[in-house]
Formats: sequence, C-alpha cells, structure tokens
Amino acid sequence: MTSASSTRRVTIALGERSYPIWIGQQLLQAPSAFDAVPAGADALIVSNSVVAPLYADRLARTLAARHRRVRQLALPDGEQHKDWPTLNLIFDDLLAHGADRKTVLYALGGGVVGDMTGFAAACYMRGVPFVQVPTTLLAQVDSSVGGKTAINHPLGKNMVGAFYQPQAVVCDLDVLGTLPARELSAGLAEVIKYGPIADMAFFDWIEAHVDALRACDPAALAHAVERSCQIKAEVVGQDEREAGLRAILNFGHTFGHAIEAGLGYGAWLHGEGVAAGMVMAAELSRELGLVDAAFVQRLSALIARAGLPKRGAVLDAADNAGRYLQLMRVDKKTEGGAIRFVLIDGPGRAVVRAAPDALVRQVIDRCCRQ
Amino acid sequence: MTSASSTRRVTIALGERSYPIWIGQQLLQAPSAFDAVPAGADALIVSNSVVAPLYADRLARTLAARHRRVRQLALPDGEQHKDWPTLNLIFDDLLAHGADRKTVLYALGGGVVGDMTGFAAACYMRGVPFVQVPTTLLAQVDSSVGGKTAINHPLGKNMVGAFYQPQAVVCDLDVLGTLPARELSAGLAEVIKYGPIADMAFFDWIEAHVDALRACDPAALAHAVERSCQIKAEVVGQDEREAGLRAILNFGHTFGHAIEAGLGYGAWLHGEGVAAGMVMAAELSRELGLVDAAFVQRLSALIARAGLPKRGAVLDAADNAGRYLQLMRVDKKTEGGAIRFVLIDGPGRAVVRAAPDALVRQVIDRCCRQ
Repeated sequence: MTSASSTRRVTIALGERSYPIWIGQQLLQAPSAFDAVPAGADALIVSNSVVAPLYADRLARTLAARHRRVRQLALPDGEQHKDWPTLNLIFDDLLAHGADRKTVLYALGGGVVGDMTGFAAACYMRGVPFVQVPTTLLAQVDSSVGGKTAINHPLGKNMVGAFYQPQAVVCDLDVLGTLPARELSAGLAEVIKYGPIADMAFFDWIEAHVDALRACDPAALAHAVERSCQIKAEVVGQDEREAGLRAILNFGHTFGHAIEAGLGYGAWLHGEGVAAGMVMAAELSRELGLVDAAFVQRLSALIARAGLPKRGAVLDAADNAGRYLQLMRVDKKTEGGAIRFVLIDGPGRAVVRAAPDALVRQVIDRCCRQ
Repeated sequence: MTSASSTRRVTIALGERSYPIWIGQQLLQAPSAFDAVPAGADALIVSNSVVAPLYADRLARTLAARHRRVRQLALPDGEQHKDWPTLNLIFDDLLAHGADRKTVLYALGGGVVGDMTGFAAACYMRGVPFVQVPTTLLAQVDSSVGGKTAINHPLGKNMVGAFYQPQAVVCDLDVLGTLPARELSAGLAEVIKYGPIADMAFFDWIEAHVDALRACDPAALAHAVERSCQIKAEVVGQDEREAGLRAILNFGHTFGHAIEAGLGYGAWLHGEGVAAGMVMAAELSRELGLVDAAFVQRLSALIARAGLPKRGAVLDAADNAGRYLQLMRVDKKTEGGAIRFVLIDGPGRAVVRAAPDALVRQVIDRCCRQ
C-alpha cells in the first residue's frame, strides 16, 4: 500500500462523461484537485448546517481563483430533509442570484447533500455542471460516485431522481476526523458491502483493519476509500443506468430501505439499515443454499465489530414480516410486483433474483430484534 | 404533397435514442403507431381535465393489447399548473399503484401535459419510458418533439427540467378539429417560426395556406406538421442538448417568455407570446442591420393573419422596457448576465447574439401596445 499522504486517483470510465475521483489528505486546500471542473463561471457551494461552518469557507477560498464568484448555501441537515421543499431552496437561490447554465454546483457534505445537489444540477436549466466533495465516509465510498441522484417521496426512498454524472469527486480524508463515530460506522457498512459482492480479499483486509478504520487511521482509510471506489467504478463503467449488473451494489439495501422507511427517515442512518439488511440478505442467501452458515456468521461478526446493527428493527409488532414485504414492494428494483433481492451466490459474487414470500418472512422473523 | 390520409414518418436521429414521429389521421385508434413502445408493462395515460374526456378512453382501448394494465390520470389544465405540486400528482399516482421501472407513461395533451409527463418520466425511479401523444398544434409541431421537458419556477419558465427523449411521438391530426381557434392560432406561431430561421420556401407556403390551416384543412395541417417536425428533427439531431445551434428554435421566445412571466402564466398562451416576440426579435434584427423593414412587415402581417398578436403586452406602465429586460435576464439563454437573442440574419437564417440594452429598450417601446 502506498503512504496515506500520496493522493490517489480512480477514474470512472464513461466515455465523454468520464471523471476522476481524487482521494487524499488536504484536498479541500488543493486547487489542482478541481482541475477537471470548467473554470470562469459562477459557483455555488451547497452544504448543510453542520458541515458548512466546518469546511465551506475553506473550499470557497480554494475555488476563489477558479470562479468569477463563489457563493454558499446551507441546507437543513438530515435524511428527513431530502425532499422537494429542500431541493427547491437550491433552485430559489440559483434563480434569485441569476445563475446561468454555466454555473457550477459543489456538493459539500454527506449523501443527502450529494444526492440533492446532484439532482438540482441535473434539473436546473436542464443541467449544469457539478462536483462532489463528500465529507462522510459513506459518501466517499459510495453515494458520491456513479451519478445516482435523487430525493425521497413519502411513499419511497430515492423515487424521484436522475442519473447525472459529476465533473469530479474530491475525497479529502482529513474531514473524516470530525465525523461522529456513529456516522463513521455507517460508512463502514458500505465498505464492508464490497467484500461479499465482489472481493473477498478486500473483506479479509477489512477484518484485519476494522479497528484502525474506526480509529480514523489515515492509511487504512485511504485504502478503504480507494478500493471501494475502484470496485464501484468497475461496476458503474459497465452499467451506468442499472440495466443489470449495477444492482449488485444494492446488497443489503432492499431490507435496509424498508427499515429506513418503516421507522421514518433519519431514525436509523442509511448505513445502519444497510448493515442489518446485509445480514438479512445473507441469511436469505443461506436459506436458498447459496452460502453456508459460517459465511453469514462471519459477515454478521464484522458488522458488529464495525459498530453496526446486525439485527433488523421491528417495524410492526403485529405483522413485522408483512410490513417489511409491503415496504419492499415499492422499492425501485421491484418488477411486475416481484421483489428482486441482491443475494450472495458464494462469497465474493452477487446475484439478483426473487425469493418466495414465505422464505423471506422466515428470514425477517429470525433476523429482527424482539 | 401526398394526400392527407397517408401517414407520414419523421425520424429524430439520436443514435440509440432515435425515435419516430408519426403524423396522420385516426392514429389514436391505430395500435401500429405505438410499435416502437416497449410492450408488456403497465401504462399510465397522463392527460388533463379538458383532453381526457375527449380522447383518453380511445387511447386506452388502442393500448389495451400492448400493456398489462392501462390506467389514466387527469391533471388540472393550464400553464399555471405546470409546477411541482401538479408534477407530484403523477409521482403520487405511480407510487400509490406500485408502478415499477418498466411502466410506460403516455402524455396525452398539449405542451403542458407533454412537458410535465416527460419530466416525470425522466425522474420517476431515475427514468421510465414515455410516449408523446400531442393534441394541440403547438405540441405537434414543437414541444412534443426533441426531448425538452420541464416545469416552471415562480422566478422563471421551464427552469427545472431535463433533456429526455420519448420512445415515439404520435400526432393524430383529427384531434386538432376540437381545438379552440385561439389555441390553433397559438400553434401556428411555432409553425411560422420555422420559416425565418430555416426555410423561407416554407414561409411562402404558410402565407399561401394560412386560411386553410386556420380552417383545419387536413392536407394543409399534414404538411405544416410534417415540415415543422422535419426542420426541428434536423436541428435537434445536430444539437440535442442545446450547446449551440438548437437555440435558434427559440426565435421569439426570449421576448415571449418575458410576456408570459410578466402577465402571469396562462394570461397569454405560449404561442401568443412567441408571436409578438418574433416581431420584436425581427425588429431588433432590423435595428442591427440584419434584415430590412419589408421582412419585418411581412412577418408581422402573417402573424396577424394567423390570428396572433403582433404587438407585445405592456408589463409595467412606469418602466415597460426595464421590466422586459429584468425578466429576460433570468431566461436560460442568459450567459454571464448578457441576454442572448435569437435574431434573423437575413430571411431563412438565424443567429444568436447579444444586443445593446439601449437598442433593446427602443425596440420594446416601439413594439408594445400602448
């Protein structure tokens, strides 16, 4: 492994829409990290009320030489604000300040800020350039990469959105130092995910370094972010619009989204839902004879060591499994009413398929907290 | 010219996203007109409260064999409803009925229904297929073709949207028979537009057939729709995302949008704003020495014969030109604060350029009703 202080580059290869992901320290202060971004026009840094006071001025200073004018907008913080009224604050601001089609949006924050800023960029005047500057581990290893943008609808998560690629993703590892432990753990859920679906050697490495990762060791973080982005880049490069392969990145998400929606967005962090969801999906894979109990146990143990929930939440005391099924049926992966699960077809390989309701009910009953 | 009863096909050539425009009579009853649309999945016909009672059942019967289930949704009618709350009615309906990623949306109506349904299709689960079934002349010759979708924002028209291409456009000329005369005239504004920017022979033809067009003569309508779509197809095929050339299709729209926004959406029809806007843009072209007074007079006369306003509305009794300029500065074609006008650089050729404020003020003063 190279030293933590060297900046690493991962490329998302999508022809004309290709872009770099920069991973390293002190990148918020590095104008060269933004070289791929069109210069000259106005810029708007979109952040939230928690992140903006910490980093927005620093980024604005770095961008000052690049743009005619750099303005800032702080949205309310939290998944419960990933909705239309909050998205519209971005449009209000852009229009009130006469922002034109060349205006560049910078998403400075976690997954919520990234998803909303990206969707605003996709829609404002039918598309303006944007840059992801993710400040959470979860956003650095997953949500800022690959061009999925969206807002939530009361009836489902990420139901209204666009595939829209940024000009660049800039992952400054230093900002992870101010991340609350719970959010760092939530990010580890998405790091862990890449093992079972694509790379068990990486899973081995995470098992050996999970304590270093939780302690924010820069070298460990650099490798975790880089390898995660490499795997994601490979998948997205083959299937940008999720016609097939890309769905494997949603391992744990079908159950996880049900937990998030069932408890109300924000009660559990996204990564927490994914963590418990991965155990449930692994258990379903075991029921279908695709993996053995030892694998499920190993995944479950790593999730616990990462500070994450390995059991699902009870969403309905009377008919918990029924409530999960109801919520999962509005997931985007549903087709003709059948829920399509991302399952593990032997460690390191994912498969997308349906499963009998009765079996899914058993798994939910077994995997939820009582 | 071929007879009106033969169906004509114009192709929008955009590689993988190419699609046919069908123009003819009795197409709402012709299942073959929808052959390019993916079959099997559910369908939702989105229309409005005026058009749905006339044509939605007819279209639903035609589609019955193509789709598992065909549902209908009628939105409130009018440009003032081209906003987020109305768009969200589509998402509410889709989610309440468990619509998945394969669901096909059909936009049955005028430009407002087409723009909103197309934008809903672009965003729902990050993109589902859709079909344009335009029922106004304006939508058949312009707004349904080329993949521009959007909703309005209180601070500007079409400010939030997407470039998103339909699977097909089906123009049934018979439905124009139920169109109010005022709306037919509004559509003629966009037909007339193609002359000065691209084809003065077509302009000659319109001058010779404007009475037949206003009388809904099927052969005349067939030619007007076909030639308009051909010109639009050629422009869009070269510049899908309006990086340059496509902007010429906005001839008259910069002034026209100011009228629409200044009076409140819905007071003037879009085509009425464009009509007066074309005269203003032609007059500005004349001031800049690009066309002569005879050309402006000829355009103005045809606009009047088409039943359209040839003078702009007064938006502010105290400072009318100032109000126009203020509104035009938030138009999408603005760049770095400068308004970019589509002007006529000799009849049959358009050019996009800025103009001195003082000159624009003179033109506005001269071209508005007192």
